[in-house]
This record gives sequence, structure tokens and C-alpha cells, in this order.
Amino acid sequence: MRAMQLTAPGTLELRTVPVPEIGPGDLLLRVGAAGICHSDSYVLGLPFQMSEQPLTLGHEIAGTIEAVGADVAGRTAGERGVVYLCWSCGTCRECLRGNENVCLAAGRTAMPPCPGLGPDGGMAEYVRIPAHTFVPIGELDFAVAAPLADAALTPMHAVNGARDQLWPGATAVAIGIGGLGHVAVQILRATTETRIIAVDVAADKLELAKACGADVTLLADDDTAAAILDLTDGRGAEAVFDFVGTDPTAKLAAATVAPNGAYRMVGLGGGVPGIDAGPAGAPGSLPWGATVRKSYGGTRSDLVDSVALALAGKVRPEIECFDLADARTAFDRLDAGAIRGRAVLVP
Amino acid sequence: MRAMQLTAPGTLELRTVPVPEIGPGDLLLRVGAAGICHSDSYVLGLPFQMSEQPLTLGHEIAGTIEAVGADVAGRTAGERGVVYLCWSCGTCRECLRGNENVCLAAGRTAMPPCPGLGPDGGMAEYVRIPAHTFVPIGELDFAVAAPLADAALTPMHAVNGARDQLWPGATAVAIGIGGLGHVAVQILRATTETRIIAVDVAADKLELAKACGADVTLLADDDTAAAILDLTDGRGAEAVFDFVGTDPTAKLAAATVAPNGAYRMVGLGGGVPGIDAGPAGAPGSLPWGATVRKSYGGTRSDLVDSVALALAGKVRPEIECFDLADARTAFDRLDAGAIRGRAVLVP
Amino acid sequence: MRAMQLTAPGTLELRTVPVPEIGPGDLLLRVGAAGICHSDSYVLGLPFQMSEQPLTLGHEIAGTIEAVGADVAGRTAGERGVVYLCWSCGTCRECLRGNENVCLAAGRTAMPPCPGLGPDGGMAEYVRIPAHTFVPIGELDFAVAAPLADAALTPMHAVNGARDQLWPGATAVAIGIGGLGHVAVQILRATTETRIIAVDVAADKLELAKACGADVTLLADDDTAAAILDLTDGRGAEAVFDFVGTDPTAKLAAATVAPNGAYRMVGLGGGVPGIDAGPAGAPGSLPWGATVRKSYGGTRSDLVDSVALALAGKVRPEIECFDLADARTAFDRLDAGAIRGRAVLVP
Amino acid sequence: MRAMQLTAPGTLELRTVPVPEIGPGDLLLRVGAAGICHSDSYVLGLPFQMSEQPLTLGHEIAGTIEAVGADVAGRTAGERGVVYLCWSCGTCRECLRGNENVCLAAGRTAMPPCPGLGPDGGMAEYVRIPAHTFVPIGELDFAVAAPLADAALTPMHAVNGARDQLWPGATAVAIGIGGLGHVAVQILRATTETRIIAVDVAADKLELAKACGADVTLLADDDTAAAILDLTDGRGAEAVFDFVGTDPTAKLAAATVAPNGAYRMVGLGGGVPGIDAGPAGAPGSLPWGATVRKSYGGTRSDLVDSVALALAGKVRPEIECFDLADARTAFDRLDAGAIRGRAVLVP
Repeated sequence: MRAMQLTAPGTLELRTVPVPEIGPGDLLLRVGAAGICHSDSYVLGLPFQMSEQPLTLGHEIAGTIEAVGADVAGRTAGERGVVYLCWSCGTCRECLRGNENVCLAAGRTAMPPCPGLGPDGGMAEYVRIPAHTFVPIGELDFAVAAPLADAALTPMHAVNGARDQLWPGATAVAIGIGGLGHVAVQILRATTETRIIAVDVAADKLELAKACGADVTLLADDDTAAAILDLTDGRGAEAVFDFVGTDPTAKLAAATVAPNGAYRMVGLGGGVPGIDAGPAGAPGSLPWGATVRKSYGGTRSDLVDSVALALAGKVRPEIECFDLADARTAFDRLDAGAIRGRAVLVP
Repeated sequence: MRAMQLTAPGTLELRTVPVPEIGPGDLLLRVGAAGICHSDSYVLGLPFQMSEQPLTLGHEIAGTIEAVGADVAGRTAGERGVVYLCWSCGTCRECLRGNENVCLAAGRTAMPPCPGLGPDGGMAEYVRIPAHTFVPIGELDFAVAAPLADAALTPMHAVNGARDQLWPGATAVAIGIGGLGHVAVQILRATTETRIIAVDVAADKLELAKACGADVTLLADDDTAAAILDLTDGRGAEAVFDFVGTDPTAKLAAATVAPNGAYRMVGLGGGVPGIDAGPAGAPGSLPWGATVRKSYGGTRSDLVDSVALALAGKVRPEIECFDLADARTAFDRLDAGAIRGRAVLVP
Repeated sequence: MRAMQLTAPGTLELRTVPVPEIGPGDLLLRVGAAGICHSDSYVLGLPFQMSEQPLTLGHEIAGTIEAVGADVAGRTAGERGVVYLCWSCGTCRECLRGNENVCLAAGRTAMPPCPGLGPDGGMAEYVRIPAHTFVPIGELDFAVAAPLADAALTPMHAVNGARDQLWPGATAVAIGIGGLGHVAVQILRATTETRIIAVDVAADKLELAKACGADVTLLADDDTAAAILDLTDGRGAEAVFDFVGTDPTAKLAAATVAPNGAYRMVGLGGGVPGIDAGPAGAPGSLPWGATVRKSYGGTRSDLVDSVALALAGKVRPEIECFDLADARTAFDRLDAGAIRGRAVLVP
Repeated sequence: MRAMQLTAPGTLELRTVPVPEIGPGDLLLRVGAAGICHSDSYVLGLPFQMSEQPLTLGHEIAGTIEAVGADVAGRTAGERGVVYLCWSCGTCRECLRGNENVCLAAGRTAMPPCPGLGPDGGMAEYVRIPAHTFVPIGELDFAVAAPLADAALTPMHAVNGARDQLWPGATAVAIGIGGLGHVAVQILRATTETRIIAVDVAADKLELAKACGADVTLLADDDTAAAILDLTDGRGAEAVFDFVGTDPTAKLAAATVAPNGAYRMVGLGGGVPGIDAGPAGAPGSLPWGATVRKSYGGTRSDLVDSVALALAGKVRPEIECFDLADARTAFDRLDAGAIRGRAVLVP
């Protein structure tokens, strides 16, 4: 089969490789579509070799069951689905509470194994997956369904973890209207009656935000924090989701979250919000009661929620499709900020 | 009546002043005891005048109702109680949800009005209080009850906001076993079945922690973070309560909180934990899913919880009593770190 | 002023009475509109005298502040608002947690005092209200705002108490699309992405449900339970709200709620669902994990949520307006089931 | 190997059978101890044949891993553990949220498969279990650990689902101090600071409750409801756990739960509390806001919590040990109400 593989630092090659073999607890999936995430681009840009063997990228995977492992119950060939990306241990304290995204087996600071970042991923004609990571999608288009695995899952987790703040009349801010941010706006629109403020540096991303249901759009500049405080009577927003995570966006989030509000770090830009333990009034201080959380991926339940919203027509990731062979073009456009929504490869 | 007043920066004077007049919605309280908090010491140390008038300090107040305002229902002279310290508006969105400690009227970063830091406080023979701030204490000693108003309320709020993490078998860390920290240990002991680790720089504070129910005590040094990670199989503690808030304690908290754990900033030392939006594995990064919250005071409900624990004999602040006239001595001992638990003035 | 009063069992009279005097903690409200609730009709039909004095009915009240009590802060004449209907003690354990609707002072089974059912209500030109029961409504029409006080508050409380079940893709059933039920559908539509099934005995009520956002409507008959189970793959609905409460609706709710689901009794028809402590499979048994709750009124916070949805245009009670003098006509139409939505009196 | 099997209605036989074979995802457990539950007694008493083949009873199982299936990761022979009793599908919406006890595959009213009630159970020398149902117990005694699988799991689930009501100073009632009830008292004592009232018809059960940490014990009679209301100022208990479920206990629970309180049906005696949809003050009515829930078993997370409490020495089921061959004696004593705590078979 064909597979888009990372063969050396920065080198992406379309190679012919054997169809994967599956174990008794696995499924073989015929890939229908595979999304491209900024983290794929990050891995592609690493100056060192990730693994000795070429690695097939791709952790946003949708497809059809081609073969079912001998010990798998309840799945049959022909079923269509999307793949949950945390391939966690399944037995630790966190896994059994449904928090597979912070699986104990991964240690304190690492992520659980993820297809395309350890095991071979979905930028190929076939992929092996553990049976319990398969989530049915009904008749959803594969190209629409694939991004649900991360671009919907991750904001869904961030939003689900802030529901206590998202009461009717509350304000939610989404910073960065890219692959994840525009889906976040759709999720907020469908599941809350908050006022949604979208912030981005690009006007066309703000148009996308409007189309996704944002009430207010703000082109990011030095006055953005003041504008958000103005819109909220000086109080700030009950929830701020930062899908960028650079210094300016982190500081914007800390400066605009309300007391008892939720600031969720989703984008991993390494920015420093400048949080200290001083009184809330001091510069760099969070307001009283506000929480900061570094949100990673999501749970299987969050993915089921995402699929449900997609099936209801309320979440529909904006996509640009590319042939599997054109992955490099897609990566280049992503890096240039030219993708509206999500780039998706179709084998 | 006699009142201990701040009359100029750094100057504390025992003065004779009129008994306060009360309005139709107020109570006049005959003070039974008034606790001394680090924030009183902070105010006493400010280089500028807080108000034009001399200010009676004291926001940890217990006493007996002496007179009842004309429009107050449900209270009678002779009742014994403790005073809730957030004198909030009572009608804003947060107040009516029970979150008076983040009252909207106080603005985004300030605290609600508090006796002893605006209105006259409780270091006097009598104090005027709004009727709804009175919480009955049954037969509790006044000197034990007064510290409940802050030294129990504040850790109770921090703990109540982290209950989702405090399951049986989880680990809770209390950093700083002073006025608040030793009560935090009592609260955790009574209301959870977690393993409690107490951290302090002073051996006698750790003895106090043991007496309050800590399972493990650690004298703070360069190896404390490693020791906590060791005790938790490298995972960190599900909840870390920092009652100090200096650079070392903030960094210790960030370095030892577990994924999906709760790090609560209670002490306001202005320390910088060094939180960034990078991947969780990077230095200075929180683990995935962990939340940081700057906890302020508590709600009236938290105070009722605190009184309930005190009445059940499970919370009993360690106290040193001083005559009202000896307030300066008490302050000096507090500043020297010589108070075990809480200093309390008795008029 | 004119007031519509209950003067004897079953007797409603438009009388001229003095404008109410207010105390230091009260507001005098010039009534803009007053809704009519089934409970008013119930009181009107009681065979005994409620009070020695004639009683002005009406607990759904919107209006303008005419005068402000001497001890009230933060309110000014001319403000427009709606009145919170639980006139609770404000100081008990439940009140201070924000649960004024189950105020301890009311005892175990009674309701807190409510205007129109003890104190004089809002079917008059003016009404006295405690200041803290006033919730601002901006520029909302009084006739639209008045029903928020109960017809929105009560379903909002029921829905807010079942949010854990209302995930994307879940099914919510509303039984009885009258004054409360049609608003419940609007609330569910705005704040969740559930599939909403509306059930009623009248086709025009189902049309109203459709207009309010219901996905499926079912004319109640012997097959309704089977139809709901069919629609949910035999599982039942994650949440069932019964706004009627007769034997058939109670049994329908018990028969269609899913395991771990929420069955909320809102309508007080006295029906018996037939719940027993036997294994879940037995006739008359709830499924495992399902909860039954008798929901009463709501909290002040629920009312603020309701007003927020109305201001956002997402909740808009269907109303029929009547002149205050025509109250009897309105009551008769309500009793005949001829009101679409809510009947509102305008002084 | 020897196995205690149900061979015909009412007939229990110690038979010699082959050691079970295991599949790739299974473990073979050498049984250390197996608890006897009332539900075993119920099955033994059924007038019809459960299955064509003889059935090994026992769903409270602790033991040592003897062999590990080919596809199982993270388990090794020699590990000691207890078996989670819901052998659910693992992939449905409820399973992946951690609610395996209400697995969708089981349908609306049935229970998930359970060892000893479908698959062969643990009253034998060996038992086959799915790998993910194994929960490690460290050095706990097998005879103490086995009852954790149900006698601790089930009350833990009921208590965990009522934690919002179990604040400091609240009252919790446990009705029926048998195998589950006495563990419930231990759980409440360790993880809450509530006042615990234990109710039973037998004085020695009340002594056991005292030893487990109950604050008040009441011998059940016609005045029990009045006594509980007296103790709670007429308000009722914030949480009532009924481990019996007969008519008198169900009515007692409904009559003593407080407004907004939690009444949990655990015992499956088929009793009728008489709940109707009328106003809360009417006979047979629940108070406003109270919830009734039929609690079944628990989640894997609840079992981990139970083991954690046992390892901390806070939960320790009272047990009477019997040789496997003496199962009939143990059953007879259980049916006669003569077992203090839990009967446990040791192979």
C-alpha cells in the first residue's frame, strides 16, 4: 500500500509498504481521510530522527473496517468510523475513570501513544488500530469526520471542562480561528447560549468565525484586551480558550478572563502568561478564583460528543482536501497560514 | 469603648471611641475575640495612610449580638456567632449564585469590602456588622471561633473547589503550616481519605501538622519536589495547596501537581510558578489537565461548613490569646514566625 | 390603585385599594404586566378562604421601580425588572448556598412565601417587593418578561439540574407544552444540542413545540412510550421533564427515562409513577441509575439565566394579553386549555 | 478443580470440573476468597433453572493471577487483585464514560453480565476473568478484599453519587446494617464529616454500626421517621441510603429525606415508597428538590476507591469465613440473618 512517511528530519516520502498486520484485539482500517495537524508539521520540522524506522504520519483518521481481530467483539467489516487518538493503557486509575488522555502509563508530562507519533498513523491506505479506539460515524463524509479526531475532540474537551462557566449570558472568547478554533466556535454555538468573541490576526479567519456562529470578532492588536473588558463591563470573559499559546495570546487570556473564570491553554506555542501568586490586582496576576488549565486532547467521551454534533449538522470542520501524494503541498500551505480550517488528505 | 486602631502608617493605638451606631439592616456585636491575620500585618506595614480616619483593624470576629437593627428578621440579642468577611453587594450575578467572594461590585481585581480593611473591624469591644454576615456558632469558644472567619474559611474554599481531585487514595499537599495551613490539614483529614503531605521550613510547624492529621511531613529543601514525586510514583499530588506563595513554594507546587490535578494559590507572596503554554514536558510547564487557581477567601457556605466542622470537633484552630491591649506584642510575634497557629485578641 | 383580588372562595374582584407602603428594605414596583399561572387558578378554586383579608393574586410580575426603601443600596427609581418569586429568609443554610427555593425557614414540605399566595401579588397597579428579589430586564417587554418569573424560571431550574444528562446527542422529552413546557423547549434548544421530543394531547400545542425548536412531536396516546423507546433504540431518553404530573404522564416518564437518566416532576397533578425498590427489570421499576426529582420553582440564579436567554432572543414566552379588568376571562380560557403559552394581565 | 455449583433449582453441589481455559484477553485467577451476597441466595432460591449447564456461583472474587492471556499487556502472574463485577461491552457510550454498570449493551433494564450469574463465578479454585476487570489489592487479605467487589463497591457508588449532599454538618442515614450497610457507614465515616444515623431491626447490627463509626443508632420501629426528623429539626436527612428496599424502609426513606436531599435505593426488596407528582406537602410526596435513584453496583473507579479505602485501613468489611465445601451452611446462616457483615468462602 502507499503511505506518506517521515523518513528523515524534514523529509516526507510517499512509499510503498506492506499492509499492516493486526493482532487479536485490533482492527484494520481502510483509510477514508486523514487530517493534517500543526503537530504533524512540528514533527516534520524536528531536527532529529523520531524513530529508526520510517514513520507514517497522521492522527486524524477516518475510514472503514477492513478486517477484525480474532478477539474483538461487537465490530464488523464495513463499519465506518473515526479513530480515538489516545492509545492509552486502559487499566490505570485515570483510564478507568474515562480520562485516557492523562493515562498514568504515559508518566507525568508525556502524552499517551498516538498514531502517527509512535505507532504508524493514518496517512496511508490502511492503518492498524486497537479496536476500542474506533468510534462509529454513520454516514458522515470521511473528509469531514477525520478532523473530528483532534480538531473537534480537543476544543470539545476544553469546552466540556469549562461548562460551569458557560451559563446563558456569559462571554466566551476563542483566540486563534484555525483548525481547532473554528470548530470551538461551532461547539460553543451549538451547546451554549453564551456571547462568543473570536480573536485572530487575520480578517479571513474572523469571517470564518462569523460563519461558525461568533457574535463578535476582533482583529488582534494592542487594544484587544481593552475591547474585551469593555464588552464585559470591565469584568472579563467567563471563559477564554487560547488556541495559539504564544506570549501575546497567553497575556491576552490572563488579562481578559473574569474572576472565577476559565482560561484554557490549548495551543502549545510556549507563551508565558505571567501568572504570579500575588494579590489579584497586581500586574500579571489572574483575577480571584480564575483557573488556568493546560488542556490536552480529550477523552473518548469527548470524541463521541463531537461525532454527535457532526451528525446533528452543528459541527462541520471547514476542510481543504488534498490527494495523499500531495501531502507536501498541504503542509506548505498549512505552514504559510493559508489553510482555511483543516487540510485533509484523501488516499 | 476601646478599639485597636491604625492611626498612621505602622502605628497601632488603643483608643477610646464611641460605640458604633447601627442601621436598620445591621447588628451590633459585642466582640468576644478577634483573630490576627498576616493581611493585618501587611496593612500595618504599608508606607501610606489607608484612610483619613483611624481604622479599627480585625476581620476575624466572633461575638454576641448586642442590638438588632429595626429591619432585621430572624436575629435576637444574645445570639453568639462569627462574622462573614466579604461584605458584598448581595444582588449581583455572583452574589446570588453564592459567590460573594467574587462580587461583581468589587470589580475585576479588587476584593469586596471587608471589616478592618475599610469599614471598622473587630479589634474593639463592639463592631457594627450587616445582619446577613452573622453565622451562629452555638457554644463554641469565641477565641476558637474567630479564626474560622478566615483561617478556616479560606482553606475550606480552596479544598471545596478541589473536591473532584480528593478521592480516596489521592495525595494532597499543604505547603506552609501557619494560621491557614494547619486548619487546611484538619479539614482534609475530616472530609477526605487522602494521604496528606505537609511541607514547611520549620520543624515545629511540621509537628503541628502531624497533630492535625498529616500522614507525611517534609522539611522544605531542594529535594522536596523529588520527595513528593517519589511518594507518588512520579505522578505528583492530585491537589497542592500553597499557603505561602513565594517563588520557591510556587515552583514547588507547579513541579509536584499531577496531571488533571489542582494547584491552588492561597498565600499571596507574589511568587512566580513559571507557567507557560508549551507542551507539558517542557521545564516550567504544568502537566496536562492540571488547573491553577488563585483562591480568595470563601463563600458564606464555606463559613457554615467551617463552623460545622468546628462544632463536630474536627476543626480546632490552634490559638495564642492576647489581651486587646497587647496587640502590638501579638503582631511582633506573628511577624517573627513565632505564633503556633493563630494569634487571637480578647477584648 | 386597582387590584384584582381573591375576596372569597372562587370570587375574583377588581377592587380599589391603597398603594402599598414599603419598608426600608423594599421597593415599590409599578406593575407592567402580571402572568397567570395554573397555581393561581388552583388557589381560585380552593373551597376555603386563604386569608382573612382579600388577597391580590399574581406571582409573575414585571414592572418599573417607583420608590426605593431607605436602606436599599444599588437600586434607583425607573429601573425595569422582573420579580423573583421565592421570598425566602436569606440567611439559612440553603439560602446562602443559593437554594432559596428550598429555604429552611419554609419547613420540610412547604414553599417559601410567594407574592400572590401570602403577601399581595402583582395583579395590581403597584406591588411591594423585597429589594433583593428585583432582577433587571433591560428593554424587554413587560408582557414577555413577567412569565419569566415562573414559566421560564421553573423549567430552567429543572433543566439546569439535569445538565449532566444533556450531552450532545442525548434525547430530552418535554411532556405537556403549556405555559412552562413551551419555554422548556426553547431553553433546551438554546443551551443544549439534544434531540428534543415534545409530547402533548393537543395538536396545536405540538405545533407550538415545533416553533419553539422541538425535533420530534408526539400526540400522546397508548403508544407514546413505545414510540420514545423506538426513537432511542430501546434505551429511553436521557432526560424527561413532566410538566403535567397526572397518572398517565408520570407513568410515561418512568417508562421512558434511560438508565442514569433524569426524570423531573414539574407539573403537580398528583399522578403516581409507580416507583418501587425492586430490580430495574420489574414492572413499575425505574431503570438503574435513573433519578426522579420533584423540582420546585428555581433559584435567583435560574431567573438571571432566564432573563439572559430572553435578552438574547432565545427564550420568548408565547403570550396572550388581557386587561387587568378581564382577569376572569383569562382564567376561564386558561382552565379550558385555550391559552397558547401564557396569559398575561396588563394593568 | 473444585467448584460450588448451582445444578438445579435450589441445589448447590461441590463438583470437580476442569480448570477454565482463557482467551487472549483473559486472566486465569487462582481464587483466594469469594464472598456470598444476598443476590446469590436469591438465585439459589429461584424456582427455575438459570442455565442448562451447572453454574459456578460467586461475584465477589479476590485472588492471584495464575496465567495471562496472549494479548494482555501490563499484567503478570502472581499479582493479587479483586475482580470488577460488571463484565460490560467496553465500547458503548456509557462504558467509555466510565459508567460500565449501566452499559448500553445490557439494554434498558437488565444488568451487564456478571460472574456467577451467567459466566462461571468465583466459588471455585480458579476462575477466568477479562483482564480489564482485575484491580490490584496490594497485600490485603483475600477474605477482606473479596467483599470489596460488591459490598464496598455498591455503597461506594451510592455515596459517590450523593457527595453534593454530604457536606460538613449534613446528616446521612443508612438503613439496614448488613453486608453493604456496615461498609457504607465506614465509607461515610472516612470520606465525609456528616452525622451518621444507622437504622436496623436488630440490636447487634446497630452495635456493628457503632463500631463502624455511626454517630446515632436507631432500632427500627413506628417512631423511626419521627426520631430522624427530630434529630434534624424537622428537616430530614440530606442523604438516605436504603440497603433493604422493603415497603417499610422505602417509606421511611421517603419520609425522612430532606428537601434537595438524596434518597438512594440500594436494597432490592421491591418495596414501594409511594412517590407521587403532587405538591411536596401531600402524604406520599417527596420534599421539593429531593432525588430518588435506584443505584446499581458501581463503576471500576468506585472499586478502585473502595480498594484505596481498604488499603488505608478505613474500610474493612466484617467477615465470617467458611470453607468452600461449607457453602450451604453459610447460605443458611445468611438467610437466617445470622451473619455479622459478610460471609466469605475460602477454597
